[in-house]
Amino acid sequence: MRIRHAGLRSRVTSAEDAAAIIRNGDTVGMSGFTGSGYPKAVPLALADRIVAEHGAGNPFKVRMWTGASTGPELDGALAKADGIDFRLPYNSDPIARDRINRGEMKYFDMHLSQVAPMAWQGFLGDLDVAVVEIVGIREDGSLIPSSSVGNNKTWLDRAKKVILEVNGWQSEALEGMHDIYYGTALPPERVPIPLVRPDDRIGQDTLRCDPDKIVAIVETDKPDRNAPFSPPDATASAIAGHILEFLGHEVRMGRLPASLLPIQSGVGNIANAVLSGLVDSPFERLTSYTEVIQDGMLDLLDEGKLTMASATAFSLSPEAAERINAEMHRYRGKMILRPQEISNHPEIVRRLGCIAMNGLIEADIYGAVNSTHVMGSRIQNGIGGSGDFARNAYISIFMTPSTAKNGAISAIVPQASHVDHISQDVQVIVTEQGLADLRGLSPREKAQTIIANCAHPTYRPMLEDYYARAQTESFGLQSPSILSEALSWHDRFVKTGTMMP
Amino acid sequence: MRIRHAGLRSRVTSAEDAAAIIRNGDTVGMSGFTGSGYPKAVPLALADRIVAEHGAGNPFKVRMWTGASTGPELDGALAKADGIDFRLPYNSDPIARDRINRGEMKYFDMHLSQVAPMAWQGFLGDLDVAVVEIVGIREDGSLIPSSSVGNNKTWLDRAKKVILEVNGWQSEALEGMHDIYYGTALPPERVPIPLVRPDDRIGQDTLRCDPDKIVAIVETDKPDRNAPFSPPDATASAIAGHILEFLGHEVRMGRLPASLLPIQSGVGNIANAVLSGLVDSPFERLTSYTEVIQDGMLDLLDEGKLTMASATAFSLSPEAAERINAEMHRYRGKMILRPQEISNHPEIVRRLGCIAMNGLIEADIYGAVNSTHVMGSRIQNGIGGSGDFARNAYISIFMTPSTAKNGAISAIVPQASHVDHISQDVQVIVTEQGLADLRGLSPREKAQTIIANCAHPTYRPMLEDYYARAQTESFGLQSPSILSEALSWHDRFVKTGTMMP
Ligand SMILES: CC(C)(COP(=O)(O)OP(=O)(O)OC[C@H]1O[C@@H](n2cnc3c(N)ncnc32)[C@H](O)[C@@H]1OP(=O)(O)O)[C@@H](O)C(=O)NCCC(=O)NCCS
Ligand SMILES: CC(C)(COP(=O)(O)OP(=O)(O)OC[C@H]1O[C@@H](n2cnc3c(N)ncnc32)[C@H](O)[C@@H]1OP(=O)(O)O)[C@@H](O)C(=O)NCCC(=O)NCCS
Repeated sequence: MRIRHAGLRSRVTSAEDAAAIIRNGDTVGMSGFTGSGYPKAVPLALADRIVAEHGAGNPFKVRMWTGASTGPELDGALAKADGIDFRLPYNSDPIARDRINRGEMKYFDMHLSQVAPMAWQGFLGDLDVAVVEIVGIREDGSLIPSSSVGNNKTWLDRAKKVILEVNGWQSEALEGMHDIYYGTALPPERVPIPLVRPDDRIGQDTLRCDPDKIVAIVETDKPDRNAPFSPPDATASAIAGHILEFLGHEVRMGRLPASLLPIQSGVGNIANAVLSGLVDSPFERLTSYTEVIQDGMLDLLDEGKLTMASATAFSLSPEAAERINAEMHRYRGKMILRPQEISNHPEIVRRLGCIAMNGLIEADIYGAVNSTHVMGSRIQNGIGGSGDFARNAYISIFMTPSTAKNGAISAIVPQASHVDHISQDVQVIVTEQGLADLRGLSPREKAQTIIANCAHPTYRPMLEDYYARAQTESFGLQSPSILSEALSWHDRFVKTGTMMP
Repeated sequence: MRIRHAGLRSRVTSAEDAAAIIRNGDTVGMSGFTGSGYPKAVPLALADRIVAEHGAGNPFKVRMWTGASTGPELDGALAKADGIDFRLPYNSDPIARDRINRGEMKYFDMHLSQVAPMAWQGFLGDLDVAVVEIVGIREDGSLIPSSSVGNNKTWLDRAKKVILEVNGWQSEALEGMHDIYYGTALPPERVPIPLVRPDDRIGQDTLRCDPDKIVAIVETDKPDRNAPFSPPDATASAIAGHILEFLGHEVRMGRLPASLLPIQSGVGNIANAVLSGLVDSPFERLTSYTEVIQDGMLDLLDEGKLTMASATAFSLSPEAAERINAEMHRYRGKMILRPQEISNHPEIVRRLGCIAMNGLIEADIYGAVNSTHVMGSRIQNGIGGSGDFARNAYISIFMTPSTAKNGAISAIVPQASHVDHISQDVQVIVTEQGLADLRGLSPREKAQTIIANCAHPTYRPMLEDYYARAQTESFGLQSPSILSEALSWHDRFVKTGTMMP
């Protein structure tokens, strides 16, 4: 029995009745982080209700807060119903993305570590309802967190009303693997966060929630949106190879310990390729302090290469989710899920000295990185935790194929059409072509290195030509540019479908 | 007597002899932060020597590391002599700036909090010689820091050889007011920094230095480069007024305590106007956790409005320097100077919840801020500590006159020609026209607010026109842009001398 608190058992109701509690104009804080631990029934029921209200000519939209991206039953369904007025802090749902890029939905793209503190600061307004997936409720009313923690602690504390989804699909063995730190506060009452190793436990294993606020509990039995895992392609393997070679070099130079430093790794094909590469690497006793636990980490844990993975969520393929669910007892001691304000906290990232590895959309020749806006205006996902990690990392690595859209787009451009990571926060750029170690270089040295090592051969001569002319035409020579051409590659792509002239 | 360690007295020598220790190609770490506490004799002697060597046809350049900007006897003299090959982490000297912008000097523009840890990381190379101004040497060989701390702790620890300048001009009463924290380490050995209030003392009041490394001591008696103070003009007063009104509003809304939160304030006319405005404000028991202690803070301290100012350096007018030197005993208990890795540490800035107020060169309609590169390519100063504070502040405020160069330049532009602060790190923008509170807004809401509240009336219609057309022409509508026009205002300025068509 998952609901072990007798008094709360009476609040079990249907998803429809729970959704009926949410009103037009409400701000709703939902659980969910990269497709795990999001509520799977109430958002769908809410979407149905919104469609019905719209059909009846009534306005109905909510302001939606989450941990990060969620699943199609949440962002997809609500965006399809045109039920979201405002969304924070991250989205990767294609339907919601389209609405945002058509100007139909307001999207506030945030540093993931700042969501909880900013919700407490008050300027985001009140939180009317929290909808949070959990694994179960203990006798004492404390909540067993699900496959992601995200901002749930904050939503439960801040919301006026709470709706819970108890998901029977989630392994009961998740109980005990979370670390929920309740020591945060607003300044001037903030104190140091006492975490000094990735495996430190500094909190409790459950979420607290005032039982009087719990207005509905819905029982579900549905899998997380676990994305299929494709084995690394040649590009991803090449990128991973360059990174592993670089890390090995840093160890040999005495600039990194042989066990490296805690690894933060974005999601996706390339990140998994790097993790796969680590299985056969000479590094031992690795640790990870990151946002999400991905497929590649399970092998590392099994091999004993990785001693600990700390994150705020799982982000697994269906097979890996099966594997982990079946053997949660074994994995539990080697994994910790924390609130995202702790998994991504600048204080901790800097203290631990994480090695950050994140994807990018484009980088310019001076090392500024665009992670969010295709052609400077169209949002892809959002900055997510990349800013939390990149600025505070011991080494901040960004990785990308050197071209996108079958070569029609160069990922290395004269000037980034939007900037998420300034050159100070970008120490290494890697493409399948090679790796640019930018540490300690002046902008002109960076440009030469990036063009030579990272650009695709098709675009390299164009970049060399631009950079050479910029040095004679530029207003100043700290970071030479040609203003009338700096964004012309993007303009050409939008007008002709390719950056090639 | 300032040199109280008997053994070290014998190392006193001339600036010329000390400068002769520095070799072509050396990396030299000098003291100095915004014109205070920099060595005043050895750099001049070194510049003379470089001129002589160049005259004799010999190459002679050094790699130069400091705390931040310094004085004309250091950056100015060495740049004039063409003696600097590479410079970090910040420069505001006009001669050095010109060399950088002509492509004659490499400049690595860094987050000021990251200089010391990166020097330890090793990729910047060895530090051959440190040249550090101090107030005196104690019997036990420990060094009494001068009017800035900057990176001196790190330079003294890392350098192979140390040259000291003992400056008789500096008040002996500086002894005891510094707080030098020796608890830093490289990961995985980093621990929480135990500072929880701006007035906490967590270290010792002197710098340590292995006496065997001290190869020369030079006695000087020269004032810091203290810049004249001009009373706030109408523009600065208007900006200060908007900020004080905003802070008052936040207190009334219950979003800030009545004593506010520790104030970080950039240097310059506007920053001083804000500080002056605080003298007559209703706020009480203010504190400051910032980079530099400026004129405006002295009045606040005298009035009892400000209980504590923590910084890494003084940055005063000649009159204020006189005042402080004469009454250092009185001020000493209310001021602390710390290493810049602590004054600017993200961990501390976030914990204390600083209210950050910094200048900018330009902001775009989506709130991205350029603090460093005029027209995208010509360096003005550098990012300095603005990134340390802006990303981690409780409220990050950027302030600027709405135009520059007598109206030929709009400080609000369609797209920033260079980005130092991404929109996530820019919560408030203020010009003399008004204040834009961007917290919690989507990019399109930000654009409307910035154009309406901050743009100069001359440029406002042009921005409205751009933004209106962008909404129909843009590739995506998260942050609408017209790629062929986004940088056209800058291009026009470079070609015609004005952004006006
Ligand atoms: C930047 C980011 C989108 C790259 O994603 P990825 O999965 O590694 O890389 P992909 O190559 O599959 O690119 C994803 C999409 O962006 C497109 N894209 C990538 N680079 C592009 C470019 N320069 N121009 C246009 N589109 C581009 C790809 O074509 C692909 O589009 P598709 O799905 O329509 O085919 C992703 O890393 C991200 O969202 N980053 C920001 C958040 C973050 O860093 N989180 C990490 C955890 S802290
Ligand atoms: C951005 C910055 C240069 C503004 O300086 P300021 O003294 O407040 O403002 P000013 O208006 O006097 O501008 C300084 C110069 O930049 C020029 N300037 C300002 N805005 C400009 C613009 N949009 N285009 C061209 N030039 C511009 C001014 O004309 C002036 O030049 P001048 O000396 O040739 O007359 C300064 O705040 C800075 O260096 N910031 C980065 C570091 C930082 O923030 N440190 C704070 C401590 S953490």
